[in-house]
Amino acid sequence: MSMPGMMDTILNLGLTPASVEGIAKQTKNERFAYDSYRRFISLYGKIALDVDEELYNKAMEKVKKEKGVKLDTELGVPELKTLCNEYKKITQEKTGKPFPDDAYEQLDYAIRAVFGSWMGRRAVDYRAQFKITPEMADGTACNIVAMVFGNMGEDSATGVAFTRDPGTGENTFFGEYLTNAQGEDVVAGIRTPKPIHEMHNDLPESYKQLCDIRAKLEAHFKEVQDFEFTIERNKLYMLQTRNGKMNAAGTVRSSVEMANEGLITKEQAVLRVKPDMIDQLLHKQIDPKFKGKALAKGLNASPGAAIGACVFDADDAVAMHKEGKKVILVREETKPEDIHGFFISEGILTSRGGKTSHAAVVARGMGKPCVSGAEEIHVDVHTKSAKIGEQVLKEGDIITLDGTTGLVFLGAAPLVDPEMTGNFGTILSWADSFKKLGIRANADTPDGAKKAREFGAEGIGLVRTERMFNAVDRLPIVVDMIMADTLEERKHHLNRLLPLQKKDFVDIFEAMAGLPVTVRLLDPPLHEFLPSLEVVLRDYFELQMKNAPAEEIAKKEKVLKKVKELMEVNPMIGHRGVRLGITNPEIYEMQVRALLEALGEGIKAGKTIKLEIMLPNVTDVNELIHMRKTVFEPIKAELEKKYGVSIPYMYGSMVECVRAALTAKELATESAFFSFGTNDLTQGTFSYSREDVEQKFMPKYVDLKVLPANPFEILDRKGVGRVMDIAVKEGRETRPNLKVGICGEHGGEPSSIEWCHKIGLNYVSCSAFRIPVARLAAAHAAIINK
Amino acid sequence: MSMPGMMDTILNLGLTPASVEGIAKQTKNERFAYDSYRRFISLYGKIALDVDEELYNKAMEKVKKEKGVKLDTELGVPELKTLCNEYKKITQEKTGKPFPDDAYEQLDYAIRAVFGSWMGRRAVDYRAQFKITPEMADGTACNIVAMVFGNMGEDSATGVAFTRDPGTGENTFFGEYLTNAQGEDVVAGIRTPKPIHEMHNDLPESYKQLCDIRAKLEAHFKEVQDFEFTIERNKLYMLQTRNGKMNAAGTVRSSVEMANEGLITKEQAVLRVKPDMIDQLLHKQIDPKFKGKALAKGLNASPGAAIGACVFDADDAVAMHKEGKKVILVREETKPEDIHGFFISEGILTSRGGKTSHAAVVARGMGKPCVSGAEEIHVDVHTKSAKIGEQVLKEGDIITLDGTTGLVFLGAAPLVDPEMTGNFGTILSWADSFKKLGIRANADTPDGAKKAREFGAEGIGLVRTERMFNAVDRLPIVVDMIMADTLEERKHHLNRLLPLQKKDFVDIFEAMAGLPVTVRLLDPPLHEFLPSLEVVLRDYFELQMKNAPAEEIAKKEKVLKKVKELMEVNPMIGHRGVRLGITNPEIYEMQVRALLEALGEGIKAGKTIKLEIMLPNVTDVNELIHMRKTVFEPIKAELEKKYGVSIPYMYGSMVECVRAALTAKELATESAFFSFGTNDLTQGTFSYSREDVEQKFMPKYVDLKVLPANPFEILDRKGVGRVMDIAVKEGRETRPNLKVGICGEHGGEPSSIEWCHKIGLNYVSCSAFRIPVARLAAAHAAIINK
Repeated sequence: MSMPGMMDTILNLGLTPASVEGIAKQTKNERFAYDSYRRFISLYGKIALDVDEELYNKAMEKVKKEKGVKLDTELGVPELKTLCNEYKKITQEKTGKPFPDDAYEQLDYAIRAVFGSWMGRRAVDYRAQFKITPEMADGTACNIVAMVFGNMGEDSATGVAFTRDPGTGENTFFGEYLTNAQGEDVVAGIRTPKPIHEMHNDLPESYKQLCDIRAKLEAHFKEVQDFEFTIERNKLYMLQTRNGKMNAAGTVRSSVEMANEGLITKEQAVLRVKPDMIDQLLHKQIDPKFKGKALAKGLNASPGAAIGACVFDADDAVAMHKEGKKVILVREETKPEDIHGFFISEGILTSRGGKTSHAAVVARGMGKPCVSGAEEIHVDVHTKSAKIGEQVLKEGDIITLDGTTGLVFLGAAPLVDPEMTGNFGTILSWADSFKKLGIRANADTPDGAKKAREFGAEGIGLVRTERMFNAVDRLPIVVDMIMADTLEERKHHLNRLLPLQKKDFVDIFEAMAGLPVTVRLLDPPLHEFLPSLEVVLRDYFELQMKNAPAEEIAKKEKVLKKVKELMEVNPMIGHRGVRLGITNPEIYEMQVRALLEALGEGIKAGKTIKLEIMLPNVTDVNELIHMRKTVFEPIKAELEKKYGVSIPYMYGSMVECVRAALTAKELATESAFFSFGTNDLTQGTFSYSREDVEQKFMPKYVDLKVLPANPFEILDRKGVGRVMDIAVKEGRETRPNLKVGICGEHGGEPSSIEWCHKIGLNYVSCSAFRIPVARLAAAHAAIINK
Repeated sequence: MSMPGMMDTILNLGLTPASVEGIAKQTKNERFAYDSYRRFISLYGKIALDVDEELYNKAMEKVKKEKGVKLDTELGVPELKTLCNEYKKITQEKTGKPFPDDAYEQLDYAIRAVFGSWMGRRAVDYRAQFKITPEMADGTACNIVAMVFGNMGEDSATGVAFTRDPGTGENTFFGEYLTNAQGEDVVAGIRTPKPIHEMHNDLPESYKQLCDIRAKLEAHFKEVQDFEFTIERNKLYMLQTRNGKMNAAGTVRSSVEMANEGLITKEQAVLRVKPDMIDQLLHKQIDPKFKGKALAKGLNASPGAAIGACVFDADDAVAMHKEGKKVILVREETKPEDIHGFFISEGILTSRGGKTSHAAVVARGMGKPCVSGAEEIHVDVHTKSAKIGEQVLKEGDIITLDGTTGLVFLGAAPLVDPEMTGNFGTILSWADSFKKLGIRANADTPDGAKKAREFGAEGIGLVRTERMFNAVDRLPIVVDMIMADTLEERKHHLNRLLPLQKKDFVDIFEAMAGLPVTVRLLDPPLHEFLPSLEVVLRDYFELQMKNAPAEEIAKKEKVLKKVKELMEVNPMIGHRGVRLGITNPEIYEMQVRALLEALGEGIKAGKTIKLEIMLPNVTDVNELIHMRKTVFEPIKAELEKKYGVSIPYMYGSMVECVRAALTAKELATESAFFSFGTNDLTQGTFSYSREDVEQKFMPKYVDLKVLPANPFEILDRKGVGRVMDIAVKEGRETRPNLKVGICGEHGGEPSSIEWCHKIGLNYVSCSAFRIPVARLAAAHAAIINK
């Protein structure tokens, strides 16, 4: 059996017209011999010679139909011999060469095929998804072992098992087996395998042996094991064992229980739960109060609820996803070729296959909800539809999967947010006890602030004040402000914004109840609030073409003029942030007034508020000095007098321009804290414009291994990381207690968080939903780099 | 007298109705007393009380007219008394206060006025032009000295002199004086002063004393001195001396001669010639063969030829300059208030004033051609025109000035390039003997390469291959290439470019005759070769509006589609340079083939060619490895086989992205040389887009002293300089003989060149015309940092 998309196994290799006769005589079981031979030809054809397996399947279906049976176990020797010849014919037609009748020739091809699979689409997609870089693994291996046969009769069997339930993590023996079968039968979903405990009746001796081995494996590996076995005439053979791929819930429960059983330490328990994986646990569940009638029921193969549009083909799924739709992949059974469809689907639904079927294994690995073996569902790929009794599901119809119960509902069922209690809460609290980094959230609204605290945020690391400018009730005022002809007019519109902005801050302070709140003053250039040149030009030309009233044209012309006046060649590195604050101080004045009024009134009312204000796009300490002297200090003095209280806040700097980092020693004379903006810092360090780079050449760069990963996703340590390190070290030369955080997207990415730990940051800040990930990643960093 | 725009002098301070009577009695010269008093009132009113001096001038003109005299020396006591009263009345009207009649009150105001002048427009403009930063000087001083009078009669005089001729540098006594006058009369240009040597007759004793002092001053200061003196009743008073402000030609000649006289060392001689100043010597001269008839003749006040449109007011001059026109400022006389007009004019023409008039002094300081005292010209500011006999000059009429001969021509006279021979050649050769940096030129054409060698380039540091794409015979092919639908089509058009590009290289190699040539592969993004979105949209809508044939619309639509496809949000940090080379290797393949064919054929023909090829926008060593393996090596191997010779070249990297510098240790494993692109490096380090920054906020930043200078003009040492330093040091850890140069605009800027010297660069590369500047700056850097 093979790890999905990573390797392929060819069973029964070495069977030839001569050896198949020999094995028939030796075992006195001609049926077994030819069953093995036909399996070999098709598997070999598919893997080593790249023949479409559908051709073999069709031949099989034809023979079964002629014989009038449903299962291949019901076929006799004559049919199997026919099938062998048929399979060989198909193979020769497709490859143009006779099927190899020499065992060594077969082996030679097979080895080449295994090595070749490394660069196949499935393997490449898989590695990309799981961020397996060439440094981590750059090639595969090929093992050759003697064959044992699970298809030698009813005293033979083959199976797959986990030492604990990989879906729930429960400490119970979990697995499936089939008698008179080979490994592929268990995972292919053609015959539905039996639960492992039934082996107690079928093959009691082997079952007892397996149970002993299960305990031995865990004691040895100190990890949940996923193993394969074959029983040949009552003799048990262990084929392989490896660490069990488990979903997040399973990993979390087994980690906590293994630690509590004394099998592993708490640190090891935390390390077992990969930060990326727990994203799954933050998936929503169907509201327990929901009483809807299920459309179908299958196996609860991978937990969590998913809502999406039905789609019956992986390529179609990708296409619909690109249109922005959420999809659920519905298949009779899935195959490794479908892997690209898994990545973008919300969940997977199959009508055949057990809990160890391809669909179930892959979905669990990815943490996607999966219901497998929902046998009432009849999928028709050609008409792109499925039937459940009378009910017809067409492509695009919305369904809800509950991978926790195995139920499928028509339409969108009500979902509820996950809770961070139970074992998950235990792991997170253990993680918190190990981590050194503080964890804050990026939040721009009072609701966002509340959500952040629920997820365990210890403060807000970034309030983007421009989000407040973009709200529907504000944008028209902001546009008026930008279009103003005079400073007076502009100030008038800013005064309209002031109470709204102040209210935002009052509410956020309230929601955070004394935890620190870091507010960034306006960051983007003003033209971002106006329509694009293309849109305005189009409107303008249209008005002209249809001879609109002169007044209307003049109005549009004014907008056009302003858009062109504000237009920049490279807006991301232009007139924005503190640069705008210095040329147009009236805007920051309004923001600082709103902040300090909210703060002053809060303090006067006896509240604890820890406000940290930072300036974006700083390149020189003089920018901080200038703004402090001309904007902050006058307003502070005025309001302290007005409210009769002192209004303390921390004054800090974003470090998102390389020069800010390189002059950190000076910057720290004015900044009580630094906050890294690593998107912009990556932009400056690489001279990469994120939007352009990702669209135009980054995929190619990663493909060609020019870069190990997109540096906007995973922090580049050599360049950007070094710049950060310089800033932290040199900033603290000036101000040993300088507080340093990060508020870019990297703040929620585990490898980047590790770097933040290594260079001694005080905290990371990320979106609320990434906070548990960040807590865990911070703990990993602390444990690994102890 | 005062340094232009830097200080002001108030003469005769302390005169009051009481003291003026006293001085009249004491000196028995009532006329002198009241002449001094009226001078004091008007000068004090102008400088300390900010009264428009035109008001005083008008009053003076009125009195002269009533009396029927031309010169103020012809006025008698009654007129002078009337003037004093008139001046006081004017002052009181304008200030609302009576004119101060107390000497200490006068002094108090005067001191405040001097200090206040530091932030006046003239002083600010002056400091900006001469790059006097607050670190260099942040304030002025005020001296108070006893008054001596040059206006006590014909045995009194006042004058200004230089120890050598500041225009030519010749070792001859140079100066002007006026009897019965005060200092302001000499510079104001109202009376035309006499050449200094005439003092030999007028005031022989004082003249002899002055000649002795001249020699003493130079021996002491080892510098040409510019001094002022007053003779009061045959007694010589030295008022001040300071280093003489000389134009470049004068500085160069005096430096060479002073070194040859043994007064200073050769190193001191080189240091006397400021690199920025010699720009003047690279000014063109009127072709000696030109036989045109002069329109007018004045004094040869500042050498060099200038062609431009007449303009009669400094503000108008600035406005015309902004429209992109070259202007010549034509005035009766100039005043410190005109300073902003000087900066942007090609040359200055005045109808009044001598060689030490304001216009002459300032123009020489700036190295601008100047003809002063061209008395035939009658300027009328109100009608914006001038008359020379019958000829009328209107604003915008083109004239040519020859500041070397004092001639003025109508229209544009033919000019010739300057030669670097004589004293200038001597200084440059001395400079070459001291400098450590190599000097190369940026040149994109064979002509440019020739010009570069004439100016002393030791190689080409930058051939921008995209310039070749932009030539009129190429651009249509480049556009075809970009618009191509298929790779084959694109390659077809590249093949059309290949021979043209190859010919360029053959010719440049020929022109450089064995000196090193550094070629940069295509740098800008492809959309730079297409029209802008706005233009295409306009055309497209226009075609639609006038119902153009569908075919034409479809064609434009295709261009529109391509422009949108290639459009980038931040093109300067997008899909360009090696990034384009990696995604579209066919373009670099064509360029590398053109280069290596030109090189291979040259080598085969026995020529010496030192070719250095570099990739732009590199951020990671893998980019170099990838291009070497996939483009350079295959083409090299193919051509070496074809030509039967080995084709060696150096393979290097631009260092213009911060990350390239920070990973220099790795980069140097693939690069035989680095070339800093400090425009882009400044862009990345500051996150500043040059075009946007300079337009939108840089002037304000420099005004507010947030930054000491525009970092795109003067290299920022703290940030960009540090990044460069890291790259040099760490690159040489890997490759001790790593060659490092710079090819951005900073390569021709003296302060930036000093930094390049300090951090150990091998060479700087700049535009051909900046090469002498760079040679001198490199020598300065070496001498100062010895």
